[in-house]
Amino acid sequence: MNRERASKQRPRSARPSHAIVLECVSPDLDAGRFAVKRVVGDRLIVGADVFKDGHDLIAARIRYRAPGENEWRYAPMTHDPTIDRWGGSLLLDTIGAWRYTVEAWTDVFGTKRSGLGKKIGADQVVALELLEIAQLVDVAARRSRFGEVRTALKTAAATLANDALSSAERASVALSPQLEALMAANLLPTDLTAYTREHTVWVDRERAVYGAWYELFPRSQTDDPARHGTFADASRALPRVAELGFDVVYLPPIHPVGTTNRKGRNNALVAGSSDPGSPWAIGNEHGGHDAVDPRLGTIDDFDAFVAAAATLRLEIALDYALQCSPDHPWLTQHPEWFFVRPDGTIKYAENPPKKYQDIYPLNFWCDDREGLWNACRDILTFWIEHGVRTFRVDNPHTKPFAFWEWVIDEVHREHADVVFLAEAFTRPKVMKHLGKLGFSQSYTYFTWRNSAHELRDYVEELAHGGAREYFRANFFANTPDILHEYLAHGGRPAFRIRLLLAATLGASYGIYSGYELCENVPLKPGSEEYLHSEKYELKPRDWNAPGNIQWDVAIINRIRRENRALHHFTNVSFHDSGDPNILFYKKSAPDADNQLLIAVTADPHATHETMVTVPVDSLGLGREQSYVVQDLLTGASYQWRGAQNYVRLDPGHQVGHIFRISRG
Amino acid sequence: MNRERASKQRPRSARPSHAIVLECVSPDLDAGRFAVKRVVGDRLIVGADVFKDGHDLIAARIRYRAPGENEWRYAPMTHDPTIDRWGGSLLLDTIGAWRYTVEAWTDVFGTKRSGLGKKIGADQVVALELLEIAQLVDVAARRSRFGEVRTALKTAAATLANDALSSAERASVALSPQLEALMAANLLPTDLTAYTREHTVWVDRERAVYGAWYELFPRSQTDDPARHGTFADASRALPRVAELGFDVVYLPPIHPVGTTNRKGRNNALVAGSSDPGSPWAIGNEHGGHDAVDPRLGTIDDFDAFVAAAATLRLEIALDYALQCSPDHPWLTQHPEWFFVRPDGTIKYAENPPKKYQDIYPLNFWCDDREGLWNACRDILTFWIEHGVRTFRVDNPHTKPFAFWEWVIDEVHREHADVVFLAEAFTRPKVMKHLGKLGFSQSYTYFTWRNSAHELRDYVEELAHGGAREYFRANFFANTPDILHEYLAHGGRPAFRIRLLLAATLGASYGIYSGYELCENVPLKPGSEEYLHSEKYELKPRDWNAPGNIQWDVAIINRIRRENRALHHFTNVSFHDSGDPNILFYKKSAPDADNQLLIAVTADPHATHETMVTVPVDSLGLGREQSYVVQDLLTGASYQWRGAQNYVRLDPGHQVGHIFRISRG
Repeated sequence: MNRERASKQRPRSARPSHAIVLECVSPDLDAGRFAVKRVVGDRLIVGADVFKDGHDLIAARIRYRAPGENEWRYAPMTHDPTIDRWGGSLLLDTIGAWRYTVEAWTDVFGTKRSGLGKKIGADQVVALELLEIAQLVDVAARRSRFGEVRTALKTAAATLANDALSSAERASVALSPQLEALMAANLLPTDLTAYTREHTVWVDRERAVYGAWYELFPRSQTDDPARHGTFADASRALPRVAELGFDVVYLPPIHPVGTTNRKGRNNALVAGSSDPGSPWAIGNEHGGHDAVDPRLGTIDDFDAFVAAAATLRLEIALDYALQCSPDHPWLTQHPEWFFVRPDGTIKYAENPPKKYQDIYPLNFWCDDREGLWNACRDILTFWIEHGVRTFRVDNPHTKPFAFWEWVIDEVHREHADVVFLAEAFTRPKVMKHLGKLGFSQSYTYFTWRNSAHELRDYVEELAHGGAREYFRANFFANTPDILHEYLAHGGRPAFRIRLLLAATLGASYGIYSGYELCENVPLKPGSEEYLHSEKYELKPRDWNAPGNIQWDVAIINRIRRENRALHHFTNVSFHDSGDPNILFYKKSAPDADNQLLIAVTADPHATHETMVTVPVDSLGLGREQSYVVQDLLTGASYQWRGAQNYVRLDPGHQVGHIFRISRG
Repeated sequence: MNRERASKQRPRSARPSHAIVLECVSPDLDAGRFAVKRVVGDRLIVGADVFKDGHDLIAARIRYRAPGENEWRYAPMTHDPTIDRWGGSLLLDTIGAWRYTVEAWTDVFGTKRSGLGKKIGADQVVALELLEIAQLVDVAARRSRFGEVRTALKTAAATLANDALSSAERASVALSPQLEALMAANLLPTDLTAYTREHTVWVDRERAVYGAWYELFPRSQTDDPARHGTFADASRALPRVAELGFDVVYLPPIHPVGTTNRKGRNNALVAGSSDPGSPWAIGNEHGGHDAVDPRLGTIDDFDAFVAAAATLRLEIALDYALQCSPDHPWLTQHPEWFFVRPDGTIKYAENPPKKYQDIYPLNFWCDDREGLWNACRDILTFWIEHGVRTFRVDNPHTKPFAFWEWVIDEVHREHADVVFLAEAFTRPKVMKHLGKLGFSQSYTYFTWRNSAHELRDYVEELAHGGAREYFRANFFANTPDILHEYLAHGGRPAFRIRLLLAATLGASYGIYSGYELCENVPLKPGSEEYLHSEKYELKPRDWNAPGNIQWDVAIINRIRRENRALHHFTNVSFHDSGDPNILFYKKSAPDADNQLLIAVTADPHATHETMVTVPVDSLGLGREQSYVVQDLLTGASYQWRGAQNYVRLDPGHQVGHIFRISRG
């Protein structure tokens, strides 16, 4: 036998605390590397696998800390034997970063108590068991606070050890709930085991998940296409947006617009003298990202505009587009922040063979990286100090991940209420990664998912896949860059369909102005660019033009506000419809008192009718029970029965139903 | 603007290497906490998500190290755009612990080269691009080894920078495969990024996954029930076991058996004077876990027995049961290794209200834990030095997890070929955890899964669930503790069915002796204990008794040896059968030249016939193609066509088919 090694090699994992295994704590994102996300008011459900060798009883609890607190708090966990898993929950009542983990320990007293009960039940002699329990109670007594508690424990220990008393008498003390409570409070565990990691849940304000967005160009809020609109004009446009029921007004960049290589109408390489330029070509002699385009007004005008929005319960979202026109002050102040070519010129943006000569990208890994990153952070701080709490971030996937993780954390440390929307139309893994890094929400592929089965698959993936813990969808139905051919070909019915889908599938959704007028002329056939794109010209509009769908927008936004089932994204379930063009889904509020059944056609051209399958079991309805569904869009009520019910959708008339169930 | 903070708060995540994201490296077990498992000769497939911001090209490779090596090796990875994932592989040609991780970097030259190609394709001016590439080639030249390589790079750089030459001429150098290879070898990445963790794959010898086990009590290998069998008797029993085609002979404990509180026949509380006692009550005045029961012979006799087995290509597996009879030497030598009760007595095993007075558990967390653990490790070392390389571990779930992780690692550091089989019939999470800690394989719930759908679900879970990376099944059809009522009621057909299932679903499987005689009388109705259990008495047997199924055993074990598809566990797929009693599955060898289709009835009472669905697509067979299947059990061949084919199974005659496919 190799006894020599015995003295050299000490057993590892030597602490008794290793006896308890604590695994698979949920929710978790990449082994604690990133925070999962919730909104204020949510209850965080924490789960864990907890076990040890042998037959001892175990106890477990959540250990957690609210933002800014130094003291740990605890929440109880219980064991669900059907899935052999421990669970508990805590209420997230403040925004910011919460920390949580799980602790477990051997329930020594409970184990002895349970063994005693079983032995008494089997009529076994329990003299030694009573003595063992007496010893344990004595330990607790010695560790307890002097006074009543210690006296009670001392008395119990003496009774348990007193063999002049009957076993039955002593056992009744050992098994009493009074002693159980005293022991739980006073016998501290000797093997308290914490999960190896602490996890973070980032808690946002509600707007990070739920909100109706409206994108408008302030400069187009003019009655005269020859006159550049101002913040004052834009303020006058706000009451209509508020009446339509939106929550957020998102503005493309409001900064001075570059003149060098300015793009003209319809993305012409050379601009006409009166062309306003793309607002994404940021910066000219009037300033850069912390300046206001003088054609829009002054910073005071902007402040007044934000204040006007606030009185209408609208919040303003700004564009955060980290790129510079050739005329941006940084090109002369900080040429070291850009890429330099072999001939000494600064490099414009390109994605070969495409060239973007009106835009210069920043070199985030330049030697003065620290100066550049801080300057980028300070832009956000500037606008936050002017009342902005929401940023739509332009193309974040072309800037370093490390920058986003750093800058979002920088902002959130002082302003936990700031919401960041990622405009990253790229590979799914990159889009999801931006969510992990801290973006509050993201644009999605929604505009390119138009058939019923594509929509169902995509929403299932986002709402029920692993990304639900950190990636939150904002379903924009159109943007200045995306006019999908479904809208181009489908006309007004298509616009009504996509609005209804975006607003009921997406807890956050948005439209870019003009959508309510069903604007759908592409630059050329097959293009997703608009003809006469507002990116390159002023675009005053007649909001009451024939065929507008403002009524749809207003009523759907009202329904959203009145039905909490539409304030969440992941609470959707899809149910069978006999027609592949008709999507049928349920949305339920967390406490189940607001249940919606929604049917929408995906076909803007033809009428479809079918039977849909109502999930009666999950709704608590009997298989043959009658109930009333009221269409919140029209007010009409229908008597339905059981699971199979009839739906008919005519794109020219009614593109969908939002049924609220009542147990009539 | 809050500029004060800027100077205080430095940007975090500041190194450029953070630009590349490396995630989800597979295989992985609990973020690298535990090793995944393979057997020698396997190819380890490594996958990873690798991406960064922007549009640069990326390169990635596996970095790995074989057991005992100090130098890292590398294997290339390629990108599969359909799933946006990188993958590569390496051959595991040695047993022991291999380490692996993934590295990635920006392919700076490839990115420039690709951009140049696109610009040339679009007829753009590329003068600056050529200069940029020249600069890069010059960097590589300066970093390269003096000599031919450096000269070649210097020449290329000069050509690229020479504006006296045509763009086309210079571009042809920039895009040449010669320069590509030179640059790949000489331009070291500046942002080489390693995955945050290294993972371990533990590589076993084949027996850890594939083997036919036979359990026998050496003391029963006697012709006279009054005479205790010896190792010499057991040696004479081995040729039959070898002829039956087994690989491993597993012996219940062979140590001196306790006399105090010895259990009598049929688990009687008081033993008769001639009762041999349970071999699991280990230890008496003749010694403990490192001694041989003198009734079996001496340690030399044991060595001779092991040698006799080896000549028959049988290996001996011993029982590792860490518990003591009241007469074990440790009770007097090391009373501190046991639990002591308030009256000073040593505590026997119990699981209230059950008592096991002939067994004393060890206190693994006693004050002399180190002495006890080392002594337990030394038991293994002792038997390893006597030629044992396989241990069946008794009830590991009642000993600390930390002990198993330590002791298996201790043994594997010096003897990587040792196989540990866990006998843990407990909650699935605990059984799986023992696999994570290092057990090579485990008993399973196989004996309690008897219907076709139960078997399918269970095997799917084990073979295709997450545990496949570390939990390996050994399908014992019976044990001295488990006579399932399916066997008790189903008689000989049931034994033939369960044998065929165990041996074809389980790459490792086993029977306990007597199975081949269809012994199936329970202690009492509904009990899983055998009447006259061999645990408590000697049991000589007539192996040629009528109704024996030795022919089945021998032919099935021969088929196992001849068909590599049966040497793996996870290579099973289930396919439809029209009859819920008939299980139909495919087993394929990794290189697909050994393809088996197996049909087994789960009903020992009635004949069933049905159509089964052959997975023609995965077999590379046409939908209407004819092919020949030969039943390896009978030799009979059948002409089949396409997917739907007919099967009839009569439990009194043929309980299943093992079809080998030939393209006849």
